[in-house]
Amino acid sequence: MPGSSTYRIVVALDAVETVRTAYRLVDVLCEKVYGFKLGLPLLLRHGPKVAGRLRSLCPSAAWIADLKLADIGAVMKATVETIIDDVDAVIAHSFVGARGALDELKEYLDARGRKLILVATMSHSGAEEVYDKALDLIDFVIERVQPWGLVAPATRPSLVERLRRKHPNTVILSPGVGAQGAKPGTALCHGADYEIVGRAITSSENPLGSLEEIGATQMEVLRQCRRERH
Amino acid sequence: MPGSSTYRIVVALDAVETVRTAYRLVDVLCEKVYGFKLGLPLLLRHGPKVAGRLRSLCPSAAWIADLKLADIGAVMKATVETIIDDVDAVIAHSFVGARGALDELKEYLDARGRKLILVATMSHSGAEEVYDKALDLIDFVIERVQPWGLVAPATRPSLVERLRRKHPNTVILSPGVGAQGAKPGTALCHGADYEIVGRAITSSENPLGSLEEIGATQMEVLRQCRRERH
Repeated sequence: MPGSSTYRIVVALDAVETVRTAYRLVDVLCEKVYGFKLGLPLLLRHGPKVAGRLRSLCPSAAWIADLKLADIGAVMKATVETIIDDVDAVIAHSFVGARGALDELKEYLDARGRKLILVATMSHSGAEEVYDKALDLIDFVIERVQPWGLVAPATRPSLVERLRRKHPNTVILSPGVGAQGAKPGTALCHGADYEIVGRAITSSENPLGSLEEIGATQMEVLRQCRRERH
Repeated sequence: MPGSSTYRIVVALDAVETVRTAYRLVDVLCEKVYGFKLGLPLLLRHGPKVAGRLRSLCPSAAWIADLKLADIGAVMKATVETIIDDVDAVIAHSFVGARGALDELKEYLDARGRKLILVATMSHSGAEEVYDKALDLIDFVIERVQPWGLVAPATRPSLVERLRRKHPNTVILSPGVGAQGAKPGTALCHGADYEIVGRAITSSENPLGSLEEIGATQMEVLRQCRRERH
C-alpha cells in the first residue's frame, strides 16, 4: 500500500449518491489522503468495476473495499472475487470467527497480495450491546487470523487504546470521526494509525476545505495529546 | 410472503456462477419450494436488478436478499435501497445490535412492507469462537428488534431448539443442510420452519431430482422425529 500522504485520513465514499460525485471527490482529494474506502451501497448500485475506474484516477492511494464481510469462507471469497483486482484491502467482521471463515479469506487474500482488515468493534451505540462485550473472544480471532489492519471506533477511544495494546503490530483505522461525533485526532492520540472520515468531507460543499480543516484539527489534537502524555 | 409450497425448503442461489444457471434453477424449482435466497456474490456480479428478473419467473416464491448486513443503520438502509423493490425479506446480523443499527433497519423495512430476518448464529465451525458464546446477548437484540425471522444453523440443532424456545413466534430458517453436513429434516425436527439448501441442489446435475430427494428425506426425518417426541 502507498505510504506517503498529507493527512492520516481515509475518505469513506459510502454515502456518495452518484459516481460523478465520487469521481470529483477522488480527483480533488487524491494526494492529500492515505486512501479511499468504498462502501457496499456504492458497489451494489454501480457494480464492483467502479472501483477500478475510481482507482485509475488516484493510483497512489490505498483502496479499501468495505464490504463488511460476515459469512462463511466460500461466500466471502466469492464476494471478494468480484473486486479483488481493483482494491488493496478488504474489510471483514471478526465476529464470524476463524475456522471455516476468516482463515479461508486470509489465505485467499494472502495468495493474491491483498490485505485483510478486520472490524474489531463498531462506532455506533448498538456496538455496546454485543460487539464490545465479546471483545475478549474477538482478541483470540485477531491473534489467530493476523490481519494487516483493524477497524476500531474513534467514538470510543478507550477501545482503540485497548486494541493498540493487545495488537501492537496491527494497523488501526478508526471510523466515527466528524458526522458520528468523534473529534479528529482523538483516535490517533489513542493509538490509531488512520482516521476514517465520510460525510463531514463527502457531503461538504468544499470537500478539500473540509479535509484540510479536519486534517489541521487532527494534527493539533495529536500534538497536544503527545505533550500531555510525555 | 407466499405460504403454500411442496417442501419447506429455501434454495440458496449463492454459489450460482451465471445468471443463466440461476434462471434455469428458478424455472425448474418454482412451485416446489418456499423461496429463494440471493447471495451477495450473485448480486454484486450481476447487479441488484437481477433479483427482479429472477423474481418475475416465480412471483409465488418468497424472495430473500442474503446481504448478511452488518453495518450502522444508515449504511444498511442505503444498501437495502438498491434491492428493496424486488425482494420480500432481507437478512442482517443480530451481532451489530439494535441502537443506531437494526432498530433503524427494522423501521425502514416495516415502512416498506418488507421483512427482516436476523442471523442468530451461523453454520460453520468458526461460529463457535464468538457468535455462539454471545447468544445470551443476541437474545436481547432479537427481543428488542422483533424480526420476522431468524437464521439458525441446521449443523447445531441444539441451538435451533434453544432459539425456538426463546422466540416462539419467530420464523426460523436453517442453513447448513446438504453440502455443509446437516441431514435434511433435522432442523425442522428441532423447531425450524424452513431449511436452506444450496449446493446440494444448485450444483446437482438434476436439481429437481435432488430437491425431491432432499424433500422426501426431510419429511421422513420429521415424521420419525415427531413419533419419537410424542
